[in-house]
Amino acid sequence: MRELLYDEASYAIGVDIGGTKVFIAIADDEGNIILKEKVKSSPDVAEIIRAIDDCIRKLNIDCGKIKGIGVGVPGMVNSKEGIVIDSPSLKWGNLRLKDIFLEHYKTAIELKNDVNLALIGERCYGGNDSDNMFYIAIGTGVGSAIIADGKIIEGFGYLAGEIGYFLGKEDMMPGKVNGFLEFGTFERKISGSALTLEGLKFGYSPQELFLQYRNHNPKVKPVIEEFALQLAIAIANGVSLLNPERVVIGGGVAESLDCIIDKIREHVANFTPVATRIELSKLGGEAGALGGIACFLKHQN
Amino acid sequence: MRELLYDEASYAIGVDIGGTKVFIAIADDEGNIILKEKVKSSPDVAEIIRAIDDCIRKLNIDCGKIKGIGVGVPGMVNSKEGIVIDSPSLKWGNLRLKDIFLEHYKTAIELKNDVNLALIGERCYGGNDSDNMFYIAIGTGVGSAIIADGKIIEGFGYLAGEIGYFLGKEDMMPGKVNGFLEFGTFERKISGSALTLEGLKFGYSPQELFLQYRNHNPKVKPVIEEFALQLAIAIANGVSLLNPERVVIGGGVAESLDCIIDKIREHVANFTPVATRIELSKLGGEAGALGGIACFLKHQN
Repeated sequence: MRELLYDEASYAIGVDIGGTKVFIAIADDEGNIILKEKVKSSPDVAEIIRAIDDCIRKLNIDCGKIKGIGVGVPGMVNSKEGIVIDSPSLKWGNLRLKDIFLEHYKTAIELKNDVNLALIGERCYGGNDSDNMFYIAIGTGVGSAIIADGKIIEGFGYLAGEIGYFLGKEDMMPGKVNGFLEFGTFERKISGSALTLEGLKFGYSPQELFLQYRNHNPKVKPVIEEFALQLAIAIANGVSLLNPERVVIGGGVAESLDCIIDKIREHVANFTPVATRIELSKLGGEAGALGGIACFLKHQN
Repeated sequence: MRELLYDEASYAIGVDIGGTKVFIAIADDEGNIILKEKVKSSPDVAEIIRAIDDCIRKLNIDCGKIKGIGVGVPGMVNSKEGIVIDSPSLKWGNLRLKDIFLEHYKTAIELKNDVNLALIGERCYGGNDSDNMFYIAIGTGVGSAIIADGKIIEGFGYLAGEIGYFLGKEDMMPGKVNGFLEFGTFERKISGSALTLEGLKFGYSPQELFLQYRNHNPKVKPVIEEFALQLAIAIANGVSLLNPERVVIGGGVAESLDCIIDKIREHVANFTPVATRIELSKLGGEAGALGGIACFLKHQN
């Protein structure tokens, strides 16, 4: 009887661990989201597990009915072995996070880089299902993720997607141009942090910069146009190299980009003859947690 | 008895069809190359097949003992269905080349884009075996190929690797910057054709430009240094995005690059903190045909 119930109703959990917030989502067997919760982040794994347990208790779910938990962590993640190799924002190094979750939950655990997990979420829940996708996340920093032929590309050292280091001839200077743990050349142009710095000159937040652009404020126009140009150059180079069916722009900054998305599309079409579709994410900060759930629904990457 | 013989001795054939030359190579069961031949190319498939048949006859091989033929074609190739979608240099469009070969040879046929096939050759015969590789071919034009997690990335429309269209802010101009069937912005900087144009100013061929650089001719120094810089920018951007274990530079121009490979490595290490190994191809123009053979040895991509 119990086993029948287990078969009939089971749940998937997605956990996106950020530097400041942990986003937890729970879905039923059919992928319907039945809980979303955002809690304060902590480098103490026990505290994160307590927050997940609270969510499970809230829904009165039997732990035996959880078919899997998909976990995203910013930084270098060995998804095959379930190890966080290096996560500067959480100060984790060589942490066998999958094993810790396994011991506590005794169910399937998928551990992934947060941007890769967000792309899986975009693919499954964002209306952007494709076997060939290029995802760019613009938040405090800039990251990207690739699905090619249905599979996430992680790279030899689990560092694929580090487009924050994209550069052009204009970025040349003697010696090291990009180093680990520093903002990359491309990040210094288009990240949320870059926009914050740029906005300070006018007394505007990044969101206000885009609002002012929409309201035809001539002072912010060159700032936003340069942003669109630089983002389009990076997208075009990614498209020429990867030939994705879809490009999705996500992360916090993406929520302000509807006023320039057509400009970006126009630029990219001028910059590369390799055709693609460019969309803004509709999932906002939820993409990662939804991706954690999607790992146990379909398109397991 | 005949079937025993068939099992004991079998052969693999690689055919790299270029715009001007067809390179044919035949290997025994263990991958030892027992024939290499270069013949004039033709858009007439029957003529290409006749050239292959001549090679088979030369070795006195029973056609029943050919376990497979790997064929490379420049342009857009649907490798799954064995169709040449578009090959401008051969003037082929929507050509079911695999079927034509199948009908004639009645054995396994692999049809691939020529740069992808060259990368498979590099991986198997070039001393560069890795599951994560980025291959840049610099010849008349510039192309690239990617192996990620052991698989060739072909892209949604079989156009992945088109780095000839890579661009930076310095390339901006009103309207279309890159179009199909035109030399791309990056190709106009570092291809053999670009070097030929550049060399004309001094009365040197591309090879002579590099020779003069090696001999400290101060006039060609800025030309070759700019070449190294632009190539390093493209490699660094590819490495940041793909995190390959190895980067291999091939194509005709690669044969002149030993005088600047250390400079290129130094640049790339300054441009991206994502580590990689950069090597020059040792296979020259044979990489594609060897890749055709490799399709039937190991690492079937």
